[in-house]
Amino acid sequence: MKFVIERDRLVQAVNEVTRAISARTTIPILTGIKIVVNDEGVTLTGSDSDISIEAFIPLIENDEVIVEVESFGGIVLQSKYFGDIVRRLPEENVEIEVTTNYQTNISSGQASFTLNGLDPMEYPKLPEVTDGKNIKIPINVLKNIIRQTVFAVSAIEVRPVLTGVNWIIKENKLSAVATDSHRLALREIPLETDIDEEYNIVIPGKSLAELNKILDDASESIEMTLANNQILFKLKDLLFYSRLLEGSYPDTSRLIPTDTKSELVINSRAFLQAIDRASLLARENRNNVIKLITLDNGQVEVSSNSPEVGNVSENVFSQSFTGEEVKISFNGKYMMDALRAFEGDDIQISFSGTMRPFVLRPKDATNPNEILQLITPVRTY
Amino acid sequence: MKFVIERDRLVQAVNEVTRAISARTTIPILTGIKIVVNDEGVTLTGSDSDISIEAFIPLIENDEVIVEVESFGGIVLQSKYFGDIVRRLPEENVEIEVTTNYQTNISSGQASFTLNGLDPMEYPKLPEVTDGKNIKIPINVLKNIIRQTVFAVSAIEVRPVLTGVNWIIKENKLSAVATDSHRLALREIPLETDIDEEYNIVIPGKSLAELNKILDDASESIEMTLANNQILFKLKDLLFYSRLLEGSYPDTSRLIPTDTKSELVINSRAFLQAIDRASLLARENRNNVIKLITLDNGQVEVSSNSPEVGNVSENVFSQSFTGEEVKISFNGKYMMDALRAFEGDDIQISFSGTMRPFVLRPKDATNPNEILQLITPVRTY
Repeated sequence: MKFVIERDRLVQAVNEVTRAISARTTIPILTGIKIVVNDEGVTLTGSDSDISIEAFIPLIENDEVIVEVESFGGIVLQSKYFGDIVRRLPEENVEIEVTTNYQTNISSGQASFTLNGLDPMEYPKLPEVTDGKNIKIPINVLKNIIRQTVFAVSAIEVRPVLTGVNWIIKENKLSAVATDSHRLALREIPLETDIDEEYNIVIPGKSLAELNKILDDASESIEMTLANNQILFKLKDLLFYSRLLEGSYPDTSRLIPTDTKSELVINSRAFLQAIDRASLLARENRNNVIKLITLDNGQVEVSSNSPEVGNVSENVFSQSFTGEEVKISFNGKYMMDALRAFEGDDIQISFSGTMRPFVLRPKDATNPNEILQLITPVRTY
Repeated sequence: MKFVIERDRLVQAVNEVTRAISARTTIPILTGIKIVVNDEGVTLTGSDSDISIEAFIPLIENDEVIVEVESFGGIVLQSKYFGDIVRRLPEENVEIEVTTNYQTNISSGQASFTLNGLDPMEYPKLPEVTDGKNIKIPINVLKNIIRQTVFAVSAIEVRPVLTGVNWIIKENKLSAVATDSHRLALREIPLETDIDEEYNIVIPGKSLAELNKILDDASESIEMTLANNQILFKLKDLLFYSRLLEGSYPDTSRLIPTDTKSELVINSRAFLQAIDRASLLARENRNNVIKLITLDNGQVEVSSNSPEVGNVSENVFSQSFTGEEVKISFNGKYMMDALRAFEGDDIQISFSGTMRPFVLRPKDATNPNEILQLITPVRTY
């Protein structure tokens, strides 16, 4: 294997595939980046066996030569060293050549590195994801779905399936649900593609968080393919594979209360700032408990008390309040996570009793599941 | 104590004094910020007993009212909470009132906090630094002196005096020296003020690093006063006190070789980048060993070898080389630290043998001690 490549394109591809690589893998070769050169271009692969990312650099793009190949082949190089090296190379182009015993020369200008590489045949094969139906979705919509649900997955692995986000595709709708059993986040969107099949899958929260980081906020579409316990997201020169979680996800629809005793309409940004302030003294407590009381004048009192440190109280203006008086306590972090999903819009909070979960939705939502955030209160009153 | 103050001015002062506060202090009250209000203004103090910072906010500045005082007094509030609170307050002004039992109300707009405070009389008194002679120095010059020497102090406390920078003021010159006994950094500047006395003090490296962070790169002057084992730096509304280290600093002048066998002139930026690349594979080794060999064609070969990972080699163009061939090994991190002190300028490196320390100075320096960086080689050849 021997080729010359534009350094900046190589750096970009290295940065992308490195996102999948974990230093704590139990499979030593997965700490490396696989590089393969053929007559189409250069392909880099990184993987921690849950997530695999493949970045492709074509030989020629827009009539500009990006890669000049002298001989085909492959190698696996330690990602930690290879990444630092290519980022610091002095010239615009890099020459990479595998010599004997997987020794690899990386040279640019006057600088010349030799890295000990590994046999690319020993690198695990990526899953084949070819059978499934392709579903298209705009990247910015996908990023929103991820942001509005992924924070609610369970951080503990007692019920592994809850560390993922449940995606259900049916009747040309995608609904994404995450819950750690104390709170729940739900997002539902119509799909543009006509899908006959029904899908019910659980994608690891970590995979979605990494995918969100790698995607730029663009309006073009990304293609998803489902098959063999894998989901594949396809961009122009990037493939993102994630393992799916096994086990059946609980039916969460029955958790959402249908009877409403009180309804509060409030601006999510103003409310978020008040909760953030009320959380300042509460963070020492394990549950970050915030109390909420509706007042006669239509305001909402948010307060918190930490005996050793002090206390905080703030009255927030609401747009409207109807129904029974509310006195409720909740985890301030859960409330802030939920409020951020509404990006500053006005919201409607439906309460159905001091110890019943309450639900946040956009004000005047036509679909009750468009964005739904549910929080279970904490017993204090 | 009761007053109303502009939030942004309070936030700025809190940020400044917080730099002196350490969560790991053995004196509990020092985790707090002392606030004192009198007829001149509001004074905030933070301290870890090595460094103390006092920030002053006047009642009126440029005909604008900044503080409205209702009653004088003082309080000590937990810096961790007080800082977070004032940074997040919703309105432009903050009202602070001490009620009974050192309980302190902090309110702004609709938000109201109560913090448990402590008796300000229990806060340790700051040292009196009044006797000493005032020395003026431009802030940007002071920042340079700190940056060019402080990295070379010893990180280990075996010889405590080496964790500080030795400042010698005599004959209207200030010379600053730091060494960890493997490398040495020296910077000498002429002083504008006429100083009759001689001073020989050791300032903790940590104090200088914090002072450097707190100072903006300005051309105006800062005033220094020395007395009672303390040094005081005076800005308009800010006092920065540091304890001095006890014990006599070793005479470092005899460490600097006077006989030169070879002399290399090179650009410090180009050399730094090459050393940085050569260090990429060396960092796993405890000493980060880089080898340097002068070549016949006037180039310098920089290389490093890490058997498990690979090796790196780069030829760097020099501007001139005279004298005996050089084959030397050194710690790459020490070399990078030293090269950064020259800010990209051309330098002259004087070698006096494979196992003798070598010295970096600006090219064509008129004063040999203007900027001097010394590094002791590592035995490998």
